[in-house]
Amino acid sequence: MAIRHIALFRFVEGTEPEQVEALAEGLARLPGVIDELGDYRYGPDAGINDGNWDYAIVADCASLADYLAYRDHPEHQALLRNLVRPMVAERAAVQLTTGQAPPDLE
Amino acid sequence: MAIRHIALFRFVEGTEPEQVEALAEGLARLPGVIDELGDYRYGPDAGINDGNWDYAIVADCASLADYLAYRDHPEHQALLRNLVRPMVAERAAVQLTTGQAPPDLE
Repeated sequence: MAIRHIALFRFVEGTEPEQVEALAEGLARLPGVIDELGDYRYGPDAGINDGNWDYAIVADCASLADYLAYRDHPEHQALLRNLVRPMVAERAAVQLTTGQAPPDLE
Repeated sequence: MAIRHIALFRFVEGTEPEQVEALAEGLARLPGVIDELGDYRYGPDAGINDGNWDYAIVADCASLADYLAYRDHPEHQALLRNLVRPMVAERAAVQLTTGQAPPDLE
């Protein structure tokens, strides 16, 4: 059973664009160091709708074991500690279980 | 540019399993009536981590126009009005833009 991990964030007031860029750079490194990470998408809200939160991370893992390996990986934990927590005012997360792979969209 | 719409919910206290099932049944009908909807995933939190929210919906659309067609479709709006709003205490949403299709995971 595959796991889709979803985390949404609201940033603290005064968060600088440089911090958001540093976060994206940190996230971009994770697939290279965490083999258990499948499709990995993240980024700022697109600005289409009012009232949205600021940032999303979606990690697809092929199994619960793979998700836990991602969650608990030292590089991921270091990124949470150093880059995410200082800029996050609110966090909402859900893990979805799904037996199906996402189809190609395009 | 593809759009991934993500919405997380916390349910009001006293939400019944029957309401959550009715929501899932309503969501399951949408891909059949909204052609612009691509990969569509939704469900309750898997219960792996403490402090998580209750439910997630992730809709992949191939373009901004397709996302807006989904967002504003009368069947989707009716589902929000009749099934989502009565049971939702908190909602967090982000739309991610992505040029890449999700690869097959499994």
